[in-house]
Amino acid sequence: MQILLTNDDGVFAPGLRALRKELLRLGEVTVVAPAMEQSGVGHSITLLSPMVVKQVDDDDGTTLGWMVEGSPADSVKLGICELLPRPPDLIVSGINSGSNAGINVLYSGTVAAAIEGAFFKITSIAVSLELSEHFDYRHAAVHAVRVIEKILANRPPNGSLYNVNLPAHSRGEPRGVRVVPMGLGRYGEGFERRQDPRGRTYYWMTYDPPYHLEGPETDVTSLCEGYITVTPLHFDLTKYDEIRQVAAWKWD
Amino acid sequence: MQILLTNDDGVFAPGLRALRKELLRLGEVTVVAPAMEQSGVGHSITLLSPMVVKQVDDDDGTTLGWMVEGSPADSVKLGICELLPRPPDLIVSGINSGSNAGINVLYSGTVAAAIEGAFFKITSIAVSLELSEHFDYRHAAVHAVRVIEKILANRPPNGSLYNVNLPAHSRGEPRGVRVVPMGLGRYGEGFERRQDPRGRTYYWMTYDPPYHLEGPETDVTSLCEGYITVTPLHFDLTKYDEIRQVAAWKWD
Repeated sequence: MQILLTNDDGVFAPGLRALRKELLRLGEVTVVAPAMEQSGVGHSITLLSPMVVKQVDDDDGTTLGWMVEGSPADSVKLGICELLPRPPDLIVSGINSGSNAGINVLYSGTVAAAIEGAFFKITSIAVSLELSEHFDYRHAAVHAVRVIEKILANRPPNGSLYNVNLPAHSRGEPRGVRVVPMGLGRYGEGFERRQDPRGRTYYWMTYDPPYHLEGPETDVTSLCEGYITVTPLHFDLTKYDEIRQVAAWKWD
Repeated sequence: MQILLTNDDGVFAPGLRALRKELLRLGEVTVVAPAMEQSGVGHSITLLSPMVVKQVDDDDGTTLGWMVEGSPADSVKLGICELLPRPPDLIVSGINSGSNAGINVLYSGTVAAAIEGAFFKITSIAVSLELSEHFDYRHAAVHAVRVIEKILANRPPNGSLYNVNLPAHSRGEPRGVRVVPMGLGRYGEGFERRQDPRGRTYYWMTYDPPYHLEGPETDVTSLCEGYITVTPLHFDLTKYDEIRQVAAWKWD
């Protein structure tokens, strides 16, 4: 099996390296990932500037893959269209340092890379690890690849798309796996207003807002309860139940 | 009515200015938009750096609103949380120079700004004009605001989200309005491989790939046929029909 591995934390990020080691059990792994950290880039792509691409080796001198001066989605596009000898059988994105649950899914470069893979009808899985003081990526990678193996064992149709979140190490050993929808509640984000040394006003987004934990069981609530979450995703933003209703409005 | 107007082409872009003039018929319009062009930024947000914000005036000295050194989604967040005296009744994003139809919806900063508005449960409408040699934004804005008025006349629930695309001026007068799903086909994108003056390899995404026009009626096909398209959107990426099936897999 040919696996394309990417992330949004950069080609040398520890989460990617740990996941690569475990994925090697499943097949050949080629890394195509951004040169630098790209947190919060969402599904951005590079249209108006060139992307320098460099081959990178692992510490032992073996070929790791490529680093791309672009976004996670750019990396997947370039990997499939230009860099890999043939399209991969599986795309894995992660392990992200920080969960991608709830509406954060839409801000996430990690998930966007997986969505990009699904555009090409390749099964794609995003993997993220909840924030904590200490990240145990090696341990997380073992759990992640178990989940990935389970998904593949069930032979999902090409282009299937999954978002996997792992609870923080500080919550103890995961309590199991839950298959849950993404949370739709807004986070309680805020901004700090400051003055720069020249007297200009700037804002800086504040960090780590509390989760909304009321309501139905979602990726957000299950993660907080210590479960690994698996959410099957799609990329069709059409609100079909409204199409007929809106079409019936008098438009002319 | 209080309207927050944003875009992804920057606060001084002609598409935004033309749309603002027409929107003034409907209520008070406050612009909060990126300082610079942000094409293809998707739903990116600025987590790791400060955003300088400046008040900007129109040519006649009246207040236009704010320019934000950030993304379209940042602009909406800051507009609602910090800059406007009260949350707006409506968010409009556009007019983008270039359509946002099919899977381009996921790459689009224009649409991401509207999705961000929907996160806050504010009705939000993205407006884009298909590429052509000559952009007639004034004309497009008249059509766009007619569509916006029609949507508002039907009193959609708070947080409703619509993606509106206008056909290029070169296709002649729009043939009408079609309410259609977003196209799901991949574009025939490609890359040009080049060497920089230092001999490094770079790739540059090629421009304006042909549309896939087979298959069912979508925003992509209807736009090509000269119709204004309206697509009701949602931001729930959960593939619900797969949740039960995947939950039934043996996970432990």
